Amino acid sequence: MIYLDNSATTAVCAEAAEKSMHMMLSNFGNPSSLHTLGIRAEAEQSQARECVATLLAASPEEIVFTSGGTEANNLAILGAVAAKHRRGRHIVVSAIEHPSVSAPIAMLEKQGFEVTYVQPQPDGNILPADVWAACRADTILVSVMLVNNETGAVFPMEKAIARIRKLSPLATVHTDAVQAVGKLPVNVKKLGVDLLTVSGHKLHAPKGVGALYCRKGVRLTPPAALGGGQEKAIRSGTENTPGIAALGEAVRVLPKPAEMQAHCAALRQRLFDCLEGRPEIRWHLPENGVPCIVNFSVMGLRSETMIHFLAAKYGIYVSAAQPVPKDIRARY
Amino acid sequence: MIYLDNSATTAVCAEAAEKSMHMMLSNFGNPSSLHTLGIRAEAEQSQARECVATLLAASPEEIVFTSGGTEANNLAILGAVAAKHRRGRHIVVSAIEHPSVSAPIAMLEKQGFEVTYVQPQPDGNILPADVWAACRADTILVSVMLVNNETGAVFPMEKAIARIRKLSPLATVHTDAVQAVGKLPVNVKKLGVDLLTVSGHKLHAPKGVGALYCRKGVRLTPPAALGGGQEKAIRSGTENTPGIAALGEAVRVLPKPAEMQAHCAALRQRLFDCLEGRPEIRWHLPENGVPCIVNFSVMGLRSETMIHFLAAKYGIYVSAAQPVPKDIRARY
Repeated sequence: MIYLDNSATTAVCAEAAEKSMHMMLSNFGNPSSLHTLGIRAEAEQSQARECVATLLAASPEEIVFTSGGTEANNLAILGAVAAKHRRGRHIVVSAIEHPSVSAPIAMLEKQGFEVTYVQPQPDGNILPADVWAACRADTILVSVMLVNNETGAVFPMEKAIARIRKLSPLATVHTDAVQAVGKLPVNVKKLGVDLLTVSGHKLHAPKGVGALYCRKGVRLTPPAALGGGQEKAIRSGTENTPGIAALGEAVRVLPKPAEMQAHCAALRQRLFDCLEGRPEIRWHLPENGVPCIVNFSVMGLRSETMIHFLAAKYGIYVSAAQPVPKDIRARY
Repeated sequence: MIYLDNSATTAVCAEAAEKSMHMMLSNFGNPSSLHTLGIRAEAEQSQARECVATLLAASPEEIVFTSGGTEANNLAILGAVAAKHRRGRHIVVSAIEHPSVSAPIAMLEKQGFEVTYVQPQPDGNILPADVWAACRADTILVSVMLVNNETGAVFPMEKAIARIRKLSPLATVHTDAVQAVGKLPVNVKKLGVDLLTVSGHKLHAPKGVGALYCRKGVRLTPPAALGGGQEKAIRSGTENTPGIAALGEAVRVLPKPAEMQAHCAALRQRLFDCLEGRPEIRWHLPENGVPCIVNFSVMGLRSETMIHFLAAKYGIYVSAAQPVPKDIRARY
């Protein structure tokens, strides 16, 4: 099997799977329970929280575990806007977000919030200047993904943030970093964002677990997950302790981003070499793209056909992009 | 270890844990992927959906997988009310629901919905007559839990439903069956409800997975989990395939409710015999209670002290009840 679909989902690493197994069979207490079993489960959870916090250069109290990237994105978007809806009605978001961002944004738009969609460049990049141009004094939320899941384009949040803060002092700033964490160094202090989304199954933890970095002092009014008050009442529900502990373990054994980049860059170069000079290939690669996401079309072939052919004939697994926004599509 | 805290959470059964391991390490595809790995993951998920549907006498299309009981309860309450908020503003709910029901209800109340709380009898039972008395023509939601998590009281939904329908023809009827499934025969057709909540970790599946039975034709407007459109767009997000497949497996190997009841009744009898004649014991047991939930106080001892003593000295694990509603507390 040649599995090249790691941006869709990853295999769980042995360490994370074993940890999950341990939590299911032995350390199975409810972390809310007062007895030893509960305390032991809670301890594993705290350890995982520290692993994730360390990876992001955050504090453990700033990590909220969720059921995955979708819930974390929903919580960030809907929670931030609900907490500030009396102070402003304007939202800035890139036009090429994942549906777990764009769908709640669309819902807010229907409810009467004003949304400015920042269009990408023809190569897929979102320019800081275009984000700045959209920022207003009454903007309450800015959300731009860190690494695009289809092109690998990287948004330079570190460069953009100071001006965003100046133009929109009210705004909560969120970034969906699901495709960035584990591939690039992601340091929340340097990025300067308020909220940042992590998905477990994109970095060799199991499906069904994710995290939201929520900077100390940032208020969220959760749209749901109301109940027992777990995760500081931002995300109620008995914690997915096997998933959370496995996420901690996956993060602990994650290779250094530089190693990962070098490995992927070498693989990408091999692909370039093999396909060089073939006129039917169209590359869709922004200049600053992460090497672990490679996007190309084979003219005249439907991507679904290609996916099935590659899997059946060579055991090669890849993804078809969802329809690309018009601006990008127009170019190729 | 004598683990008597199965209403708080259960150990994952070996079959479910192994299935989860298989999904993490081998069958790790994204069920939304078009290639063989995706299809294989989706197939496991379908099989789990059939197991859960069969258990409840539902159709597989009526099962929505969630991240647990809390999310399923939130989705039921908020989703049903959002879908019907133009048709009525009245809600009927028991006063002794789990926080994952009572918290979203309180939120709706703040938003202007009128809520009638049905008070329990002194022994913890909710009487159908009291629910009927609360039902109105403009009631859009009725939610009464099937088995109470603290007293084991069973609400006779099967007897109550016809009259509820007659009095409140607009209402969506929900029951939180988290403490019932696997302990009592739960047949959604016989119960006649529209929505029913299941939690994985209460029946030997892992934490982080649950299900909502959603009767064909019942509309829900989800409050969040907006995104990729998984689970018929009622619950977006990459599915927790290890958890879902494990839930299917746990359900498949679940003992028959009658066996479970007989086993628990024998254990309970042993406890009664041992503690007979001790004046410091106060039993809080409704007459129709399920035998797997036993609630008693030891007068003069704080329950937290007792919990720590039992765990440390005898390896016996039990729960302290959350504060009991006034009506019940007054009696003892």
